[in-house]
Amino acid sequence: MINVGVVGYGTIGKRVADAVMLQDDMKLAGIVAHSYNFKIMAASLKGIRIFSLGNRELLEKNGIKVEGDFDSLLDSADIIVDATPGGLGKENKEKYYIKKDVKAVFQGGEKADVGESSFVAQVNYDDALNKRYVRVVSCNTTGLSRTINALDRAFGVVNVNATLIRRAADPGESRKGPINALVPTLELPSHHGPDVKTVIPGIEIFTTAIVASTTLMHIHTLSVEVRKEVEREDVLKVLRKAPRIRIVSKEERINSTAEIIEFARDLGRGRGDMPEVCIWKEGIGVNGRSIFLIQAVHQESIVVPENIDAIRAMSGVPFESSFKKTNESLRIE
Amino acid sequence: MINVGVVGYGTIGKRVADAVMLQDDMKLAGIVAHSYNFKIMAASLKGIRIFSLGNRELLEKNGIKVEGDFDSLLDSADIIVDATPGGLGKENKEKYYIKKDVKAVFQGGEKADVGESSFVAQVNYDDALNKRYVRVVSCNTTGLSRTINALDRAFGVVNVNATLIRRAADPGESRKGPINALVPTLELPSHHGPDVKTVIPGIEIFTTAIVASTTLMHIHTLSVEVRKEVEREDVLKVLRKAPRIRIVSKEERINSTAEIIEFARDLGRGRGDMPEVCIWKEGIGVNGRSIFLIQAVHQESIVVPENIDAIRAMSGVPFESSFKKTNESLRIE
Repeated sequence: MINVGVVGYGTIGKRVADAVMLQDDMKLAGIVAHSYNFKIMAASLKGIRIFSLGNRELLEKNGIKVEGDFDSLLDSADIIVDATPGGLGKENKEKYYIKKDVKAVFQGGEKADVGESSFVAQVNYDDALNKRYVRVVSCNTTGLSRTINALDRAFGVVNVNATLIRRAADPGESRKGPINALVPTLELPSHHGPDVKTVIPGIEIFTTAIVASTTLMHIHTLSVEVRKEVEREDVLKVLRKAPRIRIVSKEERINSTAEIIEFARDLGRGRGDMPEVCIWKEGIGVNGRSIFLIQAVHQESIVVPENIDAIRAMSGVPFESSFKKTNESLRIE
Repeated sequence: MINVGVVGYGTIGKRVADAVMLQDDMKLAGIVAHSYNFKIMAASLKGIRIFSLGNRELLEKNGIKVEGDFDSLLDSADIIVDATPGGLGKENKEKYYIKKDVKAVFQGGEKADVGESSFVAQVNYDDALNKRYVRVVSCNTTGLSRTINALDRAFGVVNVNATLIRRAADPGESRKGPINALVPTLELPSHHGPDVKTVIPGIEIFTTAIVASTTLMHIHTLSVEVRKEVEREDVLKVLRKAPRIRIVSKEERINSTAEIIEFARDLGRGRGDMPEVCIWKEGIGVNGRSIFLIQAVHQESIVVPENIDAIRAMSGVPFESSFKKTNESLRIE
């Protein structure tokens, strides 16, 4: 049984905590409550063990049972999933995890050197085997890596050009903008291209990113040059077979990110999540050695199965045992 | 066991179908698939029995098992929940339900005369007892009725002025606007005021409605004149005790409809639904005989428990037995 603690209980942390509870070989040791809010209230109602961070009084005043402090969570966990805001993970590693001799999974908001490897399960699981510190890459990098890896294994990728139309905020964030503008990222390439190289070394990739006024998902358009001429049908077949990738279609009336999320809600997925990369069937095109496609990435949930697999890889569990178990427990196709 | 058929499988219909499946005294006889889309695909994956409407071939081509046609669903149901778009319910009643001698619950998009009574469970359950045709009123009318009824019983309401800031579309609807405008309803009063009177006869109420660029919830601001001077604390106490009303607060960092929906997702509610009217603690004010408040109404789910209670009322089940069972099965506070 792997005892997992979650530090940072926001968009990713709360989902990873729920996902850990669904695993038959893991136990959720608890979460750290940085402040009091509805997320902590909901965690408490679910029976999750809550640890304080200098705020025990505030939590208890609001009816939250406090199991102990941050230190005692570190003592009772074999591995920490650190889902704190970007940069804090590295600080936590140096101040706490190394001293307490506890393993830790970090998120894509950290720089690559926080971990011994950058992780996307279906691409490079074995690089994380028995490691102490591993970084699960960001939602966009995970989405790009899954798709590019599938095409690379099938056809050999020469280079990739991608435009990322990014969601501006997560659904629960009412203070972030913009509400009516498109905001280009004015450092080129955007950090996503270089980040994909931490997962698929040596790949040629250039990325551009634009923030759009939506909370639902990111959309990527990809232009991928491969080694040999391909047929559209072969590309579709490869993508259909690739794990954690879902082909969606206007035949099912899925015309936008709104319908993808509505579909996830209708499937009864927790929080209406869609951890699979969704690629539109009608958006796949081929011209000689070039493949074009449009995919949607659910920023809130795509890295959740990756975190679960990272925990198992770092605990020495082989890929085959982990990947299938994670998919089944999270009902991922 | 009450056999329930659902006709119209959109925002409301699909939720009522799921809610029926959670009741130990009801059986979902099936739903009618008007077309093929992701909602039908998800229903099929959940094991819901699907009936065709002249589209059996299209459904079967897409892998959907068809149990029969519309007529055979009507034959196997004791009661139909009609959640078709406004106006169609009345047509269906005249063309099918009367002929087939089947009871039917209609939604708030229909005119009041489609039913023998207009229904909000905690206000006028008994009016629907053993009736053949009942109309559950719209989301806005339901929200207004719950709150006004609670204040009326406690203090006696003299008159109500309300402004409704309405969500423009449901989350899955990618074609509707506006995306950047406020659209006033230019027929005054808006239909909501008169509609509340179908539930609470004789109440004095004037309503104005403005459509805003959001999908999450409606917000209502109410100014309620009551018979005697009241204290803010008494109002808060009355609203806290009223069923299907939830007091939310900035203490829990619930500052907008976005955080309410995020809270519902965190609670693990199906589809992230919040069927309770949410009233902000900080939004309640009192001035002599006037009460002011701000409430949010989740348009997708508020009428779901009402439909379940309407089914039981029409089947002769008394209020006490139904209301509690509905709340517990849907985990409503």
